[in-house]
Amino acid sequence: MRLRKIKNSSKILSNSKNFIPNPELYKGKWKEEFKNSNPIHIEIGMGKGKFIRENALTNKNINYIGIDKFDTILAKALRNINEYIPNLRVINYDAKELENIFDNEIDLLYLTFSDPWPKTRHEKRRLTYETFLKIYDKILKNTKKIVLRTDNRNLFEYSIISLTNYGYKIKSINLDLHNSNEIFITTEYEDKFVSKGNLIYQIECYKCI
Amino acid sequence: MRLRKIKNSSKILSNSKNFIPNPELYKGKWKEEFKNSNPIHIEIGMGKGKFIRENALTNKNINYIGIDKFDTILAKALRNINEYIPNLRVINYDAKELENIFDNEIDLLYLTFSDPWPKTRHEKRRLTYETFLKIYDKILKNTKKIVLRTDNRNLFEYSIISLTNYGYKIKSINLDLHNSNEIFITTEYEDKFVSKGNLIYQIECYKCI
Repeated sequence: MRLRKIKNSSKILSNSKNFIPNPELYKGKWKEEFKNSNPIHIEIGMGKGKFIRENALTNKNINYIGIDKFDTILAKALRNINEYIPNLRVINYDAKELENIFDNEIDLLYLTFSDPWPKTRHEKRRLTYETFLKIYDKILKNTKKIVLRTDNRNLFEYSIISLTNYGYKIKSINLDLHNSNEIFITTEYEDKFVSKGNLIYQIECYKCI
Repeated sequence: MRLRKIKNSSKILSNSKNFIPNPELYKGKWKEEFKNSNPIHIEIGMGKGKFIRENALTNKNINYIGIDKFDTILAKALRNINEYIPNLRVINYDAKELENIFDNEIDLLYLTFSDPWPKTRHEKRRLTYETFLKIYDKILKNTKKIVLRTDNRNLFEYSIISLTNYGYKIKSINLDLHNSNEIFITTEYEDKFVSKGNLIYQIECYKCI
């Protein structure tokens, strides 16, 4: 997702009570930060924050951490999250360095509408490339759960192969998520693309050590 | 696929030189029947026969065996296959009994537009249900290859899970086969449904023992 630069990004971030400026300090101790032992779900690429905010408000007994590497996007998200939400934290971090801030303590990872990086020479940047799956091994608990949602067919096809070849089992797969009776929380990006008639794909998968 | 009964099915079958009336006799000996050591590809549910006939005519160095359990459908197929094609055989057999006629000698199995059996209580009839995958273990060579093509979303979603959970690795997956630059041979059913705008899904997978 591309957003216009917004002014005072760092100020908006530091003013938000949901924002964690130094997440490395909490590695292995996120339970303490949340002051409970509830499951922790993270979203890589939280964008404008609708998905994780609504999840946090809906599921009070789950802790959520939203992550994005772009501070300007996060600033935009945090302008939309005015209230302090006790089971939500927001982090400005690069996915490839997540092992600096989590230590086998995450119950579920959401990859929502990740950049598809369509060119073969950029394969390594896709969030389901093997080096990322190795990082997720270090941050997810022993039973590793990933939910990937995208409207990008090629990224989805690639990710099914990458995840299953890495040892993930598929719990569910949906090739037209919005053509079902399920009720679920969407992202801003998703709403926009569904209204254009795009298919939304989702896979839920897990790996036990 | 449903077809009207046609008269003299058994006569049409027995008159075709491509038809094998007693396939059990060839178990473990299909190389001898073809008089060469070329790979053997089979199609379960060959229907009216376009896919396997065109494959046989295009790839002379591959042997093909088309299978269908309905003799009336096969009769219709064999009316379309007038010529004797040396690398093609046709068999009237039920998929659940294939171990009676093949013994780890098949290189590739095509499942083309199989009956989706949408009701949960009919799950066991789907050709990617575990009992069928066990049968394929007995008929496919050590490196087991399956190509599944369908326009049925639910069958495709089910089959991805069933195949990968059984140990198959995915070589390729395509969620809109006809929206690509590839040239490939289609079935009659496929032509009809593509013209209606249906998506065609395909997965190629393999399992090594």
